[in-house]
Amino acid sequence: MEVQGVRMKEGEDETSYAKNSLMQKNIILASRKMVKQAILDLYCTTFPEKLNIVDLGCSTGPNALLAISEIMDIVDQKRHELGYNPVQFQCFLNDLLWNDFNTVFKALPGFHKKRLEKDPKGSPSFVVGVPGSFYGRLFPDKSLDFIVSSSSLHWLSQVPCGLESGVKNHLNRGKISISKTSSSRVFSCYSEQFQRDFSAFITSRSKEIVIGGRMVLSLFGRKAANPTEEENCYPLDCLANALMDMASEGLVEEERIDSYNIPFYAPWSGEVMNVIHEDGTFAVDRLEIVEVEVVTIKSGCDDVMKGHQWAKNLRAVMEPMLADHFGREIMDDLFCRAGNHFNEFFSRRNPKGTCIVVSLVRKG
Amino acid sequence: MEVQGVRMKEGEDETSYAKNSLMQKNIILASRKMVKQAILDLYCTTFPEKLNIVDLGCSTGPNALLAISEIMDIVDQKRHELGYNPVQFQCFLNDLLWNDFNTVFKALPGFHKKRLEKDPKGSPSFVVGVPGSFYGRLFPDKSLDFIVSSSSLHWLSQVPCGLESGVKNHLNRGKISISKTSSSRVFSCYSEQFQRDFSAFITSRSKEIVIGGRMVLSLFGRKAANPTEEENCYPLDCLANALMDMASEGLVEEERIDSYNIPFYAPWSGEVMNVIHEDGTFAVDRLEIVEVEVVTIKSGCDDVMKGHQWAKNLRAVMEPMLADHFGREIMDDLFCRAGNHFNEFFSRRNPKGTCIVVSLVRKG
Repeated sequence: MEVQGVRMKEGEDETSYAKNSLMQKNIILASRKMVKQAILDLYCTTFPEKLNIVDLGCSTGPNALLAISEIMDIVDQKRHELGYNPVQFQCFLNDLLWNDFNTVFKALPGFHKKRLEKDPKGSPSFVVGVPGSFYGRLFPDKSLDFIVSSSSLHWLSQVPCGLESGVKNHLNRGKISISKTSSSRVFSCYSEQFQRDFSAFITSRSKEIVIGGRMVLSLFGRKAANPTEEENCYPLDCLANALMDMASEGLVEEERIDSYNIPFYAPWSGEVMNVIHEDGTFAVDRLEIVEVEVVTIKSGCDDVMKGHQWAKNLRAVMEPMLADHFGREIMDDLFCRAGNHFNEFFSRRNPKGTCIVVSLVRKG
Repeated sequence: MEVQGVRMKEGEDETSYAKNSLMQKNIILASRKMVKQAILDLYCTTFPEKLNIVDLGCSTGPNALLAISEIMDIVDQKRHELGYNPVQFQCFLNDLLWNDFNTVFKALPGFHKKRLEKDPKGSPSFVVGVPGSFYGRLFPDKSLDFIVSSSSLHWLSQVPCGLESGVKNHLNRGKISISKTSSSRVFSCYSEQFQRDFSAFITSRSKEIVIGGRMVLSLFGRKAANPTEEENCYPLDCLANALMDMASEGLVEEERIDSYNIPFYAPWSGEVMNVIHEDGTFAVDRLEIVEVEVVTIKSGCDDVMKGHQWAKNLRAVMEPMLADHFGREIMDDLFCRAGNHFNEFFSRRNPKGTCIVVSLVRKG
């Protein structure tokens, strides 16, 4: 097993991912090298005629088909080099059952057409949608060969139970952000919830994947074991500060903030490894801590742009949840204020995003 | 192989299928006995731990999960009798890619809950959605154990090519209905198109199903080889007459009728058998021609209700296609007029619907 830090290169082609969050895309790109290595290892071990691959947490945007597309391209390139026959790919796209699968499916004719144009001798692919939480079982025993999950496992199955009471001492930024102002109880609730969820995830996949099957997971994480480092907390701190500003001006009720928790947790790599080791059915082939650019500023733009670009990225991911709770009408104001808080932070610090990528092999 | 005529019994519980067409439901019920026999044959031959089952043309309504639910119930009942372990079902629900899969998926929590309440020791099921036309490939080679398709194969992949020119001599009811007024050319175009489609269907499934796998298909059909028997043609004749009435009153343009063809064909069982025999990879275990009640009239209702009930059934199936072409605003008027034509027909004749059910085994 290797553990190493890698810095993402900028300047990747972004044209086809316009609608998705840059962070989300960067996490997918961060795992690209390890996905390539894992799928080639798998393919070149047995040269199978069929491969069942799955993307867990595919979402709806233009990235929904990106992961499976890249996996098939890698196999086809190797297969052409070797002069081998096409592989029949059954591609499972998973997300929660209220994900907009209709939109994903409507993109399929264009997806197949593009693949055919790019490589008329490419492998056939059969794409299906799998609705449900990946914290439970989604597939029969030993029915998958290759599993990827990008930018999803930092979303918890629920808000940690210990935080459900709306007691007053939670009405601080810790309610929202596992921040330096959080109580240790808040932190440990989130950490426990993550480990419970991630353990359920690993146990389920362990049953669904064949012996020798491969799994590559990438998710937001943090570099330090200490969860209260400012660099880990600033995105949600800035959002929380913006909400608290609005409460002080009477634009948001404090009770709304008091009753709001985000089911998000960026783990330390040690927490991830603990769960994998305790389960014991997967060998860790490789673990990487990858720094990803969180904002790309075009040359000529001033720093004011950077904070608001960050706020825009955060909005792409979090707006539906926030709008449900606080109302759609305050979203413009909220993310504008959050942008100002980001600018204040960036005037002092220049953080990168942290992504954990881990490549696993199902033991025999 | 057996060929026989069976009369459907009335009085089945209809409460859970309120939104779907009665005809569609009756076709599902008509195939129930043969589905039961086929799945029990399959299960009791090898007592598999996993079964991959698929419903081709599942649609969106409350029938979407009915077929797979019944298949699993049959296996579980037998399994409980024998004291065997649960079977892991991977259930594939297929329909065209603009089918509303989101709605089907949102029904899954309720579906699983109901199954669990009914039989706490029931087999686990993993349900996925498969978008695409069943006239092409949908699955990898040898990946399915059991296939059903109810009330779908009478829909052609497209309007027969020979009818696409808008020439004046097609402007008669034959354009729409393969009726007694149709030219033989219109009939043979539809028949050829059906056989081309059905052959593509059988060829695709032949590759996708395992040796010994079972397939039960049910579709609208006709009893006589002669396609111009009034009893075969009256539903679309009545609709066509209603459209022509509206054209004569200036409410619909004749050109709109001239350019409209319905991709629907109710085959004779001989046409179905020819395609299966020509393909040669499936053995026919059983073929049944089933009469289904097309309208259930509550006691106390007069005959006027019957025609309008029929028009309502037809509307449930055909309104989206007709509204696209003729405009939503004429639908009430159109189906009211069609109901009057149905009443005129029922005053002379008392026809049943005809359904072809065929049970196939993949040869080795």
